[in-house]
Amino acid sequence: MNNRGELYGIGVGPGDPELLTIKAFKLLKNSDVIIAPKSSPKKSSLALDVVKRAFIEWGASLPKVDNITFPMTTVQNKKKINKEIEDKILNNLNHGLNLSFITLGDPFLYSTYRRLTSKIAEYKNIKVKHIPGIYSFSAISARLGKELTWGNDRLAIIPVEKNKNYLQELKNFETVVFLKVTSDLHGLINQLKEAKRLQDAILVEKVGMEDEKIYYELDKLDNINYLSTIIVFKNQTMSR
Amino acid sequence: MNNRGELYGIGVGPGDPELLTIKAFKLLKNSDVIIAPKSSPKKSSLALDVVKRAFIEWGASLPKVDNITFPMTTVQNKKKINKEIEDKILNNLNHGLNLSFITLGDPFLYSTYRRLTSKIAEYKNIKVKHIPGIYSFSAISARLGKELTWGNDRLAIIPVEKNKNYLQELKNFETVVFLKVTSDLHGLINQLKEAKRLQDAILVEKVGMEDEKIYYELDKLDNINYLSTIIVFKNQTMSR
Repeated sequence: MNNRGELYGIGVGPGDPELLTIKAFKLLKNSDVIIAPKSSPKKSSLALDVVKRAFIEWGASLPKVDNITFPMTTVQNKKKINKEIEDKILNNLNHGLNLSFITLGDPFLYSTYRRLTSKIAEYKNIKVKHIPGIYSFSAISARLGKELTWGNDRLAIIPVEKNKNYLQELKNFETVVFLKVTSDLHGLINQLKEAKRLQDAILVEKVGMEDEKIYYELDKLDNINYLSTIIVFKNQTMSR
Repeated sequence: MNNRGELYGIGVGPGDPELLTIKAFKLLKNSDVIIAPKSSPKKSSLALDVVKRAFIEWGASLPKVDNITFPMTTVQNKKKINKEIEDKILNNLNHGLNLSFITLGDPFLYSTYRRLTSKIAEYKNIKVKHIPGIYSFSAISARLGKELTWGNDRLAIIPVEKNKNYLQELKNFETVVFLKVTSDLHGLINQLKEAKRLQDAILVEKVGMEDEKIYYELDKLDNINYLSTIIVFKNQTMSR
């Protein structure tokens, strides 16, 4: 009888293939199949693009790749996703294969990886290793050469929602990272103005990718890509 | 005339040498000198321990190592630190050497690296690369197999201070990471109880290091190491 394979949940970081960890790279090389999530069958997997570039750069040969498509969740889609997880992950593990499920950034910070873990939790005795990845906002602070926090500074990470008020957080936290900013870009920028923190804010689109862009004048923004983050850095003159 | 060397500010991650990024490892190998910060001359550098283990594991030979001691800052110490930075970093860069300044975790999240950047900002035309590292709390979530955030969850990162009140943050944020918890461990635990979030909280000491420990029953804690983090995970029943 075969031994069951291992499942690796791997964060590949924000886009730069060299920001993979040594552990992630080793486990990917040790995988029989790399499972890459996609939001639609027509799109390419951004996480897979990063992994492919890392393997080219380090002269290693890429294992077999398979995809799982995670469209917006409806009841019907959920059944389809669970069927894909069973076919492509659970069955393969039972056949002794080692599988890597890759995800942009980190598997435990706003990641599709949850769709998988909530399903495989139903199965007993699956060996899983979770490998953390560099967050996009860490890469942005390094890219800009600006510290996120120092001393007793506090940091808030907030996914933007339409028509929400963030004035309290902009007052109480030295540094605020806003994700999914295209959900309400103009609403957010108006609040940054009201909180007098617009001058502390920088937007970075697709950090570490080939078409990365940095914007300093946020009130002149237009047509921003979904993979954008606004960091409101510590205002040296603020007091709380 | 020599070309000036480059300075690399490198986050080595929380303790596990395999959580170094590929980029960090490449730049360390490319360094003439690795500068390791210490809090006192008698102590070893934790960041250097991580780097040494990574080089052993990957069969590479370690470059020359030098230390800079960053004691608690007084005016006298500040002058001494600036003198050390000039001697060991600026002079060496001027002689064409490539230097890596290493730091546990990430250089831009609560790091001693700032002591360096605030000084070298006074000098023109120094080439610097900043390399992000895995944060301790990312490694903890991966270690525990528990997600920090999902969907529209919000995350707060807070260094604990004596006699501060955190009830508002415990109410408004799905996930709260408390750093420097030994500053007021019992005060914090009382607040977790009051906010009815004690059962969501886990403490991890020295994540990824050889003597890592995980504590689930926080009201029974005693004698915790300085390198400890409490994560208050999302309460599945909470509403905001």
